[in-house]
Amino acid sequence: MRPKSDTVHVFNLTFLCFIALFFSSALGQGKIRRFKWEVKYEFKSPDCVQKLVITINGKFPGPTIKAQQGDTIVVELKNSFMTENVAVHWHGIRQIGTPWFDGVEGVTQCPILPGEVFTYQFVVDRPGTYMYHSHYGMQRESGLIGMIRVSPPVTEPEPFSYDYDRNVLLTDWYHKSMLESATGLASRPFKWVGEPESLLIQGRGRFNCSNDPGLLSRACNASNADCSRFVLTVIPGKTYRLRLGSLTALSALNFQIEGHNLTVVETDGHYVEPFTVKNLFIYSGETYSVLIKADQNPSRNYWITTSIVSRPANTSQATAVLNYYPNHPRRRPPTPESSNLQPKWNDTRPRLAQSLAIKARRGFVHTPPENSDRVIVLLNTQNEVNGYRRWSVNNVSYLHPKTPYLIALKQNLTDAFDWGFTPPENYDSGNYDIFATPQNVNAKTSDGIYRLRFNTTVDVILQNANTMNAKNSETHPWHLHGHDFWVVGQGEGKFNESEDPKRYNRVDPIMKNTVAVHPFGWTALRFRADNPGVWSFHCHIESHFFMGMGIVFESGIDRVSSNLPSSIMGCGQTKR
Amino acid sequence: MRPKSDTVHVFNLTFLCFIALFFSSALGQGKIRRFKWEVKYEFKSPDCVQKLVITINGKFPGPTIKAQQGDTIVVELKNSFMTENVAVHWHGIRQIGTPWFDGVEGVTQCPILPGEVFTYQFVVDRPGTYMYHSHYGMQRESGLIGMIRVSPPVTEPEPFSYDYDRNVLLTDWYHKSMLESATGLASRPFKWVGEPESLLIQGRGRFNCSNDPGLLSRACNASNADCSRFVLTVIPGKTYRLRLGSLTALSALNFQIEGHNLTVVETDGHYVEPFTVKNLFIYSGETYSVLIKADQNPSRNYWITTSIVSRPANTSQATAVLNYYPNHPRRRPPTPESSNLQPKWNDTRPRLAQSLAIKARRGFVHTPPENSDRVIVLLNTQNEVNGYRRWSVNNVSYLHPKTPYLIALKQNLTDAFDWGFTPPENYDSGNYDIFATPQNVNAKTSDGIYRLRFNTTVDVILQNANTMNAKNSETHPWHLHGHDFWVVGQGEGKFNESEDPKRYNRVDPIMKNTVAVHPFGWTALRFRADNPGVWSFHCHIESHFFMGMGIVFESGIDRVSSNLPSSIMGCGQTKR
Repeated sequence: MRPKSDTVHVFNLTFLCFIALFFSSALGQGKIRRFKWEVKYEFKSPDCVQKLVITINGKFPGPTIKAQQGDTIVVELKNSFMTENVAVHWHGIRQIGTPWFDGVEGVTQCPILPGEVFTYQFVVDRPGTYMYHSHYGMQRESGLIGMIRVSPPVTEPEPFSYDYDRNVLLTDWYHKSMLESATGLASRPFKWVGEPESLLIQGRGRFNCSNDPGLLSRACNASNADCSRFVLTVIPGKTYRLRLGSLTALSALNFQIEGHNLTVVETDGHYVEPFTVKNLFIYSGETYSVLIKADQNPSRNYWITTSIVSRPANTSQATAVLNYYPNHPRRRPPTPESSNLQPKWNDTRPRLAQSLAIKARRGFVHTPPENSDRVIVLLNTQNEVNGYRRWSVNNVSYLHPKTPYLIALKQNLTDAFDWGFTPPENYDSGNYDIFATPQNVNAKTSDGIYRLRFNTTVDVILQNANTMNAKNSETHPWHLHGHDFWVVGQGEGKFNESEDPKRYNRVDPIMKNTVAVHPFGWTALRFRADNPGVWSFHCHIESHFFMGMGIVFESGIDRVSSNLPSSIMGCGQTKR
Repeated sequence: MRPKSDTVHVFNLTFLCFIALFFSSALGQGKIRRFKWEVKYEFKSPDCVQKLVITINGKFPGPTIKAQQGDTIVVELKNSFMTENVAVHWHGIRQIGTPWFDGVEGVTQCPILPGEVFTYQFVVDRPGTYMYHSHYGMQRESGLIGMIRVSPPVTEPEPFSYDYDRNVLLTDWYHKSMLESATGLASRPFKWVGEPESLLIQGRGRFNCSNDPGLLSRACNASNADCSRFVLTVIPGKTYRLRLGSLTALSALNFQIEGHNLTVVETDGHYVEPFTVKNLFIYSGETYSVLIKADQNPSRNYWITTSIVSRPANTSQATAVLNYYPNHPRRRPPTPESSNLQPKWNDTRPRLAQSLAIKARRGFVHTPPENSDRVIVLLNTQNEVNGYRRWSVNNVSYLHPKTPYLIALKQNLTDAFDWGFTPPENYDSGNYDIFATPQNVNAKTSDGIYRLRFNTTVDVILQNANTMNAKNSETHPWHLHGHDFWVVGQGEGKFNESEDPKRYNRVDPIMKNTVAVHPFGWTALRFRADNPGVWSFHCHIESHFFMGMGIVFESGIDRVSSNLPSSIMGCGQTKR
């Protein structure tokens, strides 16, 4: 028996070596950065009105993850909710080699149950500005949000210089609970969430309580420390990199700093050929780095503002203060809060113009493949399914399966979702009038997915259209998990399948993970299906995705380890 | 190889026969009654104020389960919440042979995840009045409640007669959400839930909106059909069995019908030696059957009322109408709503007197064992743990483990909870002053359990005491899962371990599953640990149990099948 036992020992040693090698490789060559997070609900007043807010270690927004390219992030997340599950997505991190830690409930993992600790572990493999947020139901809008900042290796300096690096996370804010909003959306008759009551800059806003007498009985206290204005202090003459991120539930935003130009240098982890704006438009799911120079009259402070575009909202702009040191940080700028002129909400042109202005920075261009292997055209429409209001893509409204796709596909659970149904790759583009209120709004729901051949190139055309309301089309920021895509084209009206591809930018298109489809317009993306896993692609507006506006791509599933972490199990067909 | 294979086949056949026999026995000889339930949140206005309410198939309270002794109930429960789990307890059903379907999250099952369907299957083995409700966090108070009515076999008629059988489920009602209440309780500093805004009779109450200007912005509509008064129509001369149940979150109640006597004939599934009251006191978790005769002036209607006792609440009484046919059901009784005199909230004596009046009905007495094998004395106190406000039993405040006990014990998961710690069986009864505000309120939290030798007799003495507020003691209705107990004694002050047991009622004590411990008083129970499984025993006040006021008994775990249903898995250490 001895030899056999020895063989086993030898095998075990080999196995251990293999595991060790695998991990040292998977973990990159960088540092391991460990975080212990406890998520729970707490009473907070981000816009001076008390509400239950999700906090991480007591903070809203959550702590910023700061790391260097190649580092491994380990987040031990404790769910301290009472009856509610959670899952956290690391927005913009491709999860190469760790598709099970993308944090999308129903796609890559089962939700994390109350009382449980889940450990996310992944490598941040590119410098840039990223975010994290809940990816479960409409939980993101309750506050589980934060930023990730990855610096380059010292040997690869960034192609621009600045003295200080600062975060500015933008959100919109509702007084009703996520449960009230979601219940309304899932009700028949449909009950729309409405426009947000406030906007928040770094988690701070300012609701005018006299506008809503119903709040009298709730704590609405303008002097609550939670809603004191965000102050960005600058030293005269210095240059600041502001890392802007938007995790709005609904709103498209405009961002301005009174009297200061914003030079765009990065978006979604890619360097941008610099250009300067007064107003930066930013959509949910996007990040931008802008440089500002503190070169104005240093004897005063300046207004920082953000306001809603693309929807006719009455929501007030949010204000913060650019504080020139050594002025007092609470010193009010001498100008009115309204000094930053707000763009017209329904003027799409400057927004499309900004989109078209964003190109990859010279010297940092990733040239896209010349041609694509597959073209998928996705018509975005508002629909009805059995009398419920939904959003659809090519008339299919997305539903999560109970068993996450990643597990179902790896374990061949053939009844876990509709394996047999591949959603359509096009719509009746010859006849469909994208400018008309649709005649037949009926759609079907499905959890069928698009399966992509590994290492092929895929073009996706996102085609916008009129909603169920006359003369109305909305902005949809689409976010792709697990990949960046090249934005090869954007335009107004209906995409022309024979002509428009000829004008694709194949020279210096920017790579992004989130891009807007403008009202009545189209956006063309190209990406390489080179990351084995199952990946969500969806509108980043919380209610739109909740109402079915998304699809799922699988590619290279055979290259994903069959040894999935047991921590992602526990739901659907994955109970012991 | 053939013989071996045949042996396997023979074994399999035997096994199948065994399974078939087991199920035909476990399922009883009665009918199988199938229910398909969908639970979700809907906007409802039970007391005229709109709120998110848990409904079952659109109803609040949920549908009544009507069955006959020996029937098998099969409930396919679909969780249609968005991000919240659920578990449903069948209150008063002993789950003999099916301990895994007792529905207590953390004790007998993992919670049911959103989107999932869980099938409860159990036999109702005794006639009587029972209830069901959520047993997860403080979810019960959001509305997942209903009644179970089990009739005897035709060969065993009930020892009283009546013409009609009606349900009256009583609850209290908060305007804030369960999440707001629970977050407050779990906060430091502690934020008490406060008294309920309303009481509900069969899910209907009536809040006076002018009392709360903060509700102006929410729908508060006195003509909403959801809050039209409950009407109980009676035919003059007929006798009615009213099956009363209380599932209040907090409140002890008094129930009256103007001008009518209530004859108590059943409680918690056991026949009571009849006695007549004007006011019936009922505590959360209790059921009573009372007979009323429609023998009053038939030309008018009468007020049915319920009001709060034992706490100094400002909550208005709830009203319903006893409608004498053929008067119009909406015809207002000619007397004022306040005609039913409310008992003084802090007068414990009539409540203790009612408790002492309840005896087993002659001819239906289950004589308790003469002696007990073990005596467990449980001091009920309010405490602090690390600055958090808690309730404790012998200075141990209960916490659920992440892996349910039933699974942990059957599968020998030795790190799933604190196996090594047996909570104390007594307190320092010689020195502890139950009438004084405690000096040292510190307690510890634990998930340790009491393990009972199978088929032994256990006495439990529940000893009340002063809370952390001077001259204050509360009513605690304790509920035992999986068993009924004999109520062998109740008294005022401190239980005397040498004298009081001599006065135990060993002749005709009532059996119950829920019994009150009155302020500054004690209650003595006796039960046979004859039901293999793991069973919760706790105060039925939602916030008290949430704050740790409970314990867990195991007995006969070796007699529980090792083949636990996979549907109860998925949390803690039970992921695949």
